[in-house]
Amino acid sequence: MEVEQVPEQLSHRTVRHRDEFGVEFSRIVAFSDGVFAIAITLLVLAIEIPPNVPDLGKALRNQEGDFLAYALSFAVIGKLWIAHHRFFTGVERFDNRLMGLNLFYLGWIALLPFTSEVLGDYGDQTDGVIVYAANLAAVGLIAAGMHLYCFRAGLVKEEVRPLQRAYTGPFYLVTPGVFLASIPIALFSPTLATLSWLLIFFISPQIRRL
Amino acid sequence: MEVEQVPEQLSHRTVRHRDEFGVEFSRIVAFSDGVFAIAITLLVLAIEIPPNVPDLGKALRNQEGDFLAYALSFAVIGKLWIAHHRFFTGVERFDNRLMGLNLFYLGWIALLPFTSEVLGDYGDQTDGVIVYAANLAAVGLIAAGMHLYCFRAGLVKEEVRPLQRAYTGPFYLVTPGVFLASIPIALFSPTLATLSWLLIFFISPQIRRL
Amino acid sequence: MEVEQVPEQLSHRTVRHRDEFGVEFSRIVAFSDGVFAIAITLLVLAIEIPPNVPDLGKALRNQEGDFLAYALSFAVIGKLWIAHHRFFTGVERFDNRLMGLNLFYLGWIALLPFTSEVLGDYGDQTDGVIVYAANLAAVGLIAAGMHLYCFRAGLVKEEVRPLQRAYTGPFYLVTPGVFLASIPIALFSPTLATLSWLLIFFISPQIRRL
Amino acid sequence: MEVEQVPEQLSHRTVRHRDEFGVEFSRIVAFSDGVFAIAITLLVLAIEIPPNVPDLGKALRNQEGDFLAYALSFAVIGKLWIAHHRFFTGVERFDNRLMGLNLFYLGWIALLPFTSEVLGDYGDQTDGVIVYAANLAAVGLIAAGMHLYCFRAGLVKEEVRPLQRAYTGPFYLVTPGVFLASIPIALFSPTLATLSWLLIFFISPQIRRL
Repeated sequence: MEVEQVPEQLSHRTVRHRDEFGVEFSRIVAFSDGVFAIAITLLVLAIEIPPNVPDLGKALRNQEGDFLAYALSFAVIGKLWIAHHRFFTGVERFDNRLMGLNLFYLGWIALLPFTSEVLGDYGDQTDGVIVYAANLAAVGLIAAGMHLYCFRAGLVKEEVRPLQRAYTGPFYLVTPGVFLASIPIALFSPTLATLSWLLIFFISPQIRRL
Repeated sequence: MEVEQVPEQLSHRTVRHRDEFGVEFSRIVAFSDGVFAIAITLLVLAIEIPPNVPDLGKALRNQEGDFLAYALSFAVIGKLWIAHHRFFTGVERFDNRLMGLNLFYLGWIALLPFTSEVLGDYGDQTDGVIVYAANLAAVGLIAAGMHLYCFRAGLVKEEVRPLQRAYTGPFYLVTPGVFLASIPIALFSPTLATLSWLLIFFISPQIRRL
Repeated sequence: MEVEQVPEQLSHRTVRHRDEFGVEFSRIVAFSDGVFAIAITLLVLAIEIPPNVPDLGKALRNQEGDFLAYALSFAVIGKLWIAHHRFFTGVERFDNRLMGLNLFYLGWIALLPFTSEVLGDYGDQTDGVIVYAANLAAVGLIAAGMHLYCFRAGLVKEEVRPLQRAYTGPFYLVTPGVFLASIPIALFSPTLATLSWLLIFFISPQIRRL
Repeated sequence: MEVEQVPEQLSHRTVRHRDEFGVEFSRIVAFSDGVFAIAITLLVLAIEIPPNVPDLGKALRNQEGDFLAYALSFAVIGKLWIAHHRFFTGVERFDNRLMGLNLFYLGWIALLPFTSEVLGDYGDQTDGVIVYAANLAAVGLIAAGMHLYCFRAGLVKEEVRPLQRAYTGPFYLVTPGVFLASIPIALFSPTLATLSWLLIFFISPQIRRL
């Protein structure tokens, strides 16, 4: 019996270069962009239309949480998309593990319309805030892990290699760190936990300056 | 301790040229197109399916507002997409601020399925009309601001530079202007406010002719 | 006072060639593809999940209409996408009118998830069948009109020009014709009207052979 | 009367090469990617937001099935997308039959948000498990059929031709085989049927090694 070799294309160890597989590489980023674009646009479905109320203005003001959650999550997904965009600009090779990691990452991005709706409806409860914070902490940690993998496996462009610390170090860990830290805070005060997220804007520039 | 420089790729001041960053540039427009395409296609979800009614035809005629809102918002988002499309044809560089502005703009585009559904259900009430008009006024003003920024920051192609007045001047302000003006009108008559939006078709050609 | 000329980019009369405006042309087809892809994927939302029933199998069998409407509409939107795809392969220039016509066409494509859900729920009623048939008749007629415009305005590639009759003649009018004809039939029998749609598969090959 | 030939572009027998029809080929993969991306992102809509419950955490724990179905289906659609991606990398020609097969395949992909929601809500019932297993069995068999067609019709790249057995043989049939086999198991125990799906991870490496 003839021993058939594992075809290279099916192997998990094959690394493909961006230039040779231009269409394939751009399919990955296009798929990622698609998930980002759909997730960000589905956020709007979380804003309820008041059903047949006499005073629409008052009903909408009562849904203030829905609007805040929409604005926050749109900004968050948008920022995450820009970061994804910028990081993949520096990637020049991809392998199956990167595709798997990217997919795992997208699985948490695509969950955001759900956790955002939870935040909009239950933002004044401990569990509502924890669900949202946990989702974003997961996103941040997986992103850092994906970056680390790309640097270690040599998938990034030569000129990007010196940036490893920037992409996997403290600067990128501020966001998941703040969200993680807000989870125990939410046990005492959901409002305080929500406000603590603003720390990201104060800590990030400090670290950038260092 | 060694002072590490802010990597250029992470800097907010980096301006990237379309030709060098073709994939990246086209990702931005593709992402924008994605949001437009999803938002325009989600409009249909606002049209309710009458649940188990004996006379479907009558039930659908009672939902006339939903169909008008669908047609209006499809035309509006379509027109906005064409305008976005045409403007970005003339852009040859992008920086992080443009990406941020574009995202902020898209946040209001992605809100339209909600405000359109509000208009369909509450188009005969002052607040329903105001919500829709405010959304479109915001879209128009942010677009004008984004155009202005691109011209001032020198992000547009050389041959487009003389068009600054066309893209940021009175012609582009007609639409947000009419929607803004319809808000106080809606306090007296929602119907009149809705009809006032038709003024756009009369004023725009006048300004174009000037 | 200086008379400012209408900038060419804003003019409705500008015709742009595919080769010079590759990114822009591909944005139009990408946007159209996006609407097709979203509409076809939204069809699934019309299939209801039976809420907490004891016998799931029976409940799903009672929703037979939903599944048939899904299968029919998926095939229809898919076929329409292939036709759109094939036609735009032959287009080499575009102007604002083509963009407007294409948008108007897409407005009826994006409505299909609604009319398909109506068919699934009310396929045994005259009005349910009429709504669906009217939507597809509109799609077919607008497509024929768009094709005609492209040929007359000289927007198609030289080698495609002899195909005008194929793209705008009887072959392309079979589908909207059958749907239009099924509307009066539905007044007598919705089932017969639905079955009459199968005539498309018998008539089209005859015309093709001629 | 002149006999008009069937225009080649309309013929079902025309085979088009990737290099000559780059835009058209990439439209097909882009459309497929779109359907994958939308279907995978719509999965989140199946996770219900508990309406106004006092104990959110408990309510979410009760929806455990929804989260498991989301995770499973996200992984499944993601894996299927990667497989589709990888296969189409090796395709260099397409004809109308491939477009039709691909569309038929996508029709079952786009159904997954529905069957996944059924699994999440009825994963403890025989019919709920069967519906999901049947959907994935169909997906796998159609994929194998599509691969087979591409190899037989000579649509794949020369260097991929030796991989026919890998793409259509036992390795690719493991997944649909396991899902098919789980259907009779579900008649006795839905839980056992669900667990049997894990066999895919044990059988596939064995076959790969052979």
